[in-house]
Amino acid sequence: MNLIDIIETKKLGKQLSPEQIAFFANQAASSKSLDYQLAALLMAIRLNGMSIEETTALTIAMAKTGDILSPDVDGVAVDKHSTGGVGDTTTLILVPLVAACGGRVVKMSGRGLGHTGGTIDKMESIPGMRVELSEEEMMDNVRRIGCCVVGQTGDLVPADKRLYALRDVTSTVDSIPLIASSIMSKKIAGGAEAIVLDVKLGAGAMMKTLDDCVELAQTMVGIGAGIGREVVAFITGMEEPLGSHVGNALEVKDAIDVLAGRTEGPLLEVSLRLGEQMLILSGLAKDEEDAHHQLVSALNEGRGLKKFKEMIAAQGGNPAVCDNISLLPQAKYTKEVLCPVDGYILSVDAQAIGEAARQLGAGRTRKDDILDLSVGLVMHRRIGDRVRKGDPLATIYHNDEQKAASAQSSLLDAVKIGKEQPPKAKLIYGRITKNNTEIYP
Amino acid sequence: MNLIDIIETKKLGKQLSPEQIAFFANQAASSKSLDYQLAALLMAIRLNGMSIEETTALTIAMAKTGDILSPDVDGVAVDKHSTGGVGDTTTLILVPLVAACGGRVVKMSGRGLGHTGGTIDKMESIPGMRVELSEEEMMDNVRRIGCCVVGQTGDLVPADKRLYALRDVTSTVDSIPLIASSIMSKKIAGGAEAIVLDVKLGAGAMMKTLDDCVELAQTMVGIGAGIGREVVAFITGMEEPLGSHVGNALEVKDAIDVLAGRTEGPLLEVSLRLGEQMLILSGLAKDEEDAHHQLVSALNEGRGLKKFKEMIAAQGGNPAVCDNISLLPQAKYTKEVLCPVDGYILSVDAQAIGEAARQLGAGRTRKDDILDLSVGLVMHRRIGDRVRKGDPLATIYHNDEQKAASAQSSLLDAVKIGKEQPPKAKLIYGRITKNNTEIYP
Repeated sequence: MNLIDIIETKKLGKQLSPEQIAFFANQAASSKSLDYQLAALLMAIRLNGMSIEETTALTIAMAKTGDILSPDVDGVAVDKHSTGGVGDTTTLILVPLVAACGGRVVKMSGRGLGHTGGTIDKMESIPGMRVELSEEEMMDNVRRIGCCVVGQTGDLVPADKRLYALRDVTSTVDSIPLIASSIMSKKIAGGAEAIVLDVKLGAGAMMKTLDDCVELAQTMVGIGAGIGREVVAFITGMEEPLGSHVGNALEVKDAIDVLAGRTEGPLLEVSLRLGEQMLILSGLAKDEEDAHHQLVSALNEGRGLKKFKEMIAAQGGNPAVCDNISLLPQAKYTKEVLCPVDGYILSVDAQAIGEAARQLGAGRTRKDDILDLSVGLVMHRRIGDRVRKGDPLATIYHNDEQKAASAQSSLLDAVKIGKEQPPKAKLIYGRITKNNTEIYP
Repeated sequence: MNLIDIIETKKLGKQLSPEQIAFFANQAASSKSLDYQLAALLMAIRLNGMSIEETTALTIAMAKTGDILSPDVDGVAVDKHSTGGVGDTTTLILVPLVAACGGRVVKMSGRGLGHTGGTIDKMESIPGMRVELSEEEMMDNVRRIGCCVVGQTGDLVPADKRLYALRDVTSTVDSIPLIASSIMSKKIAGGAEAIVLDVKLGAGAMMKTLDDCVELAQTMVGIGAGIGREVVAFITGMEEPLGSHVGNALEVKDAIDVLAGRTEGPLLEVSLRLGEQMLILSGLAKDEEDAHHQLVSALNEGRGLKKFKEMIAAQGGNPAVCDNISLLPQAKYTKEVLCPVDGYILSVDAQAIGEAARQLGAGRTRKDDILDLSVGLVMHRRIGDRVRKGDPLATIYHNDEQKAASAQSSLLDAVKIGKEQPPKAKLIYGRITKNNTEIYP
């Protein structure tokens, strides 16, 4: 067997055999294989697709190229994953909140290579926080307090590391089977027994159409069904940033505000919908209503915030940030951005807002860029809001006047204001389970 | 501009701009570009195609990455090119024959990476023959005697060298725009003002369907039209080997036999059809009939063979081979292959016959394999012939009993014999000119 024959098969639009797929995954993990052959195969997969059987086989084969964790956590190891958006800090809300309801959340996250940092970058804005734990320490923390949020430990899915890096530079990121197998292989290797997925749709998301989101969600749920893991996926809107805060320390603050009951809105709403399924799949709630009640009780009683403090302390961080957010990295300056005209907010291009945050230093352009965890922006208005000229539109948190000016200009370009009130931006588009694809009206 | 954007454009099935194509060609010629990005782009082109405008732009841009010869030959520099087949030694017949009629043939050929050697390998079986001439020497020979057959001189089309090597190992050889631009860029860089193409169809050819052949022929003729070079293409059959001789010295012998008037048949027929157009495009004949008459007269009067001797002598070879073929490299042994049953020859898989010759040492498996120029095989029967068990089917010329046994077995597998007489294999399928695509009934 060799890669050329496998490329040839996929080039001709034929189905790869399980043996061919296993060979491909092993080659991707081997330093002896040739980048240009992998690149040609990735493009053939991007253009000719893969069946659910091929994608499932690829997912398993990729997971097997590295370590596979076996969580020992006195319960169902539950995980969540978002395909990535702007101002989406649901993880930092959900992980402690679900743990506060008895869930066992082993959350492995990545650093961001995008507009803003990833969850791990956000975590590092908490003074003292360690995100590199050994497997033993992770499992011990989860058994003891119910949750952890860590960077990838051990040698998980080396095939994905290679393919992900190659896809990024060969324009083959936007392939549903490749996205699905990349995400799911990492979840499987991380030991997740139940997984709740949040597939983002809209201007700020990788997927720009509902059909693509449904296909990706069905593919990932199908992979789960094929290997006996419980998977539920939501499709949620990413037309505008989910939370009002965009930036690393700022998003930690946003999560603390939600956990403290100070902030409501779309960020909380999506967190609750995902959290409900996490509790149900963990066997801790009998239905959505039960799960919702448990989550809201935990929130109202401050148990979510308490659990967040426990998790921070367990990972060496300073839990006092939860009571005094000025302990988080603070930008030196703020700059108010005002509405330039009267009208209604028609759109807030999430991707462009993310880019504005990146211009400030909140996100990476290259893998080894060092982030400024303190900078970012806070949006004061959402799509559909009525505004008057001079109203506060956003606050920019920055350490460099020039970068702030550039971010302001990007931000103003990203926000469209018009005379007619637009329909409200949709938040939850649908839910995909093993047996059902529901798209909400 | 960067390659990722260009890959992205082609991945989405969009047309590349002339600037993007020029950038791609220059990157292909640059040692600084990345193989894996070129590989991804080649696969995107293979799967999403290119318009004739894109292919023409690519051809010109590729040609411009290296030297471009300006022939100064007292007439129209005419060239011919075949997409490659088995037992096809039309070049060695046509070049001297057309020159004998006053044509100016500057023929640059390659070494073979296939079943059998390329024209240059065949030429080297003539003792003393030099195939590496300087540009001055080439042009001087053509002015003086009308023709030369040489290997690529100077630094012609470096972009093609890189892309050709990559295509070979990424399963992207079978792309019509990539084949067309590869062939035509080399013809343009070689200075050809008029070009006659022979696109092979059938089991022994790269193209397996008439539609693909027509598309490739139209593409190459279209490129010619786009840049003001006269191009005519034929589609000819390659179901079975064109000539009866397969192997390097053996094919030189076949060419000499045709030029000496000892051998007729499909090899001569195709040579005459291509030669007619070469004379017409050179402005030396007013129509096919005129051209045909000139070529047949040259042949009958021995002027073709005489010209071949002149060319051999001009390139340092021993022209006496034309009168005494035993001066060519001779295999030590022969082995007769007999018809195993009575019946009709239904098919002679040209590719498999080529493979049998390669097993003997006549062709390369790797670029640096050293050929045995003396070995090969001679077919004594063609498709449609009636045979009796024990009739001579082929003679194997070899230097190694074991290789001969293996070649015999491949050869017998390649020949199908049945009870019913099959229709005659078609030889000339059609002709494509700038203004017309004729497919013969």
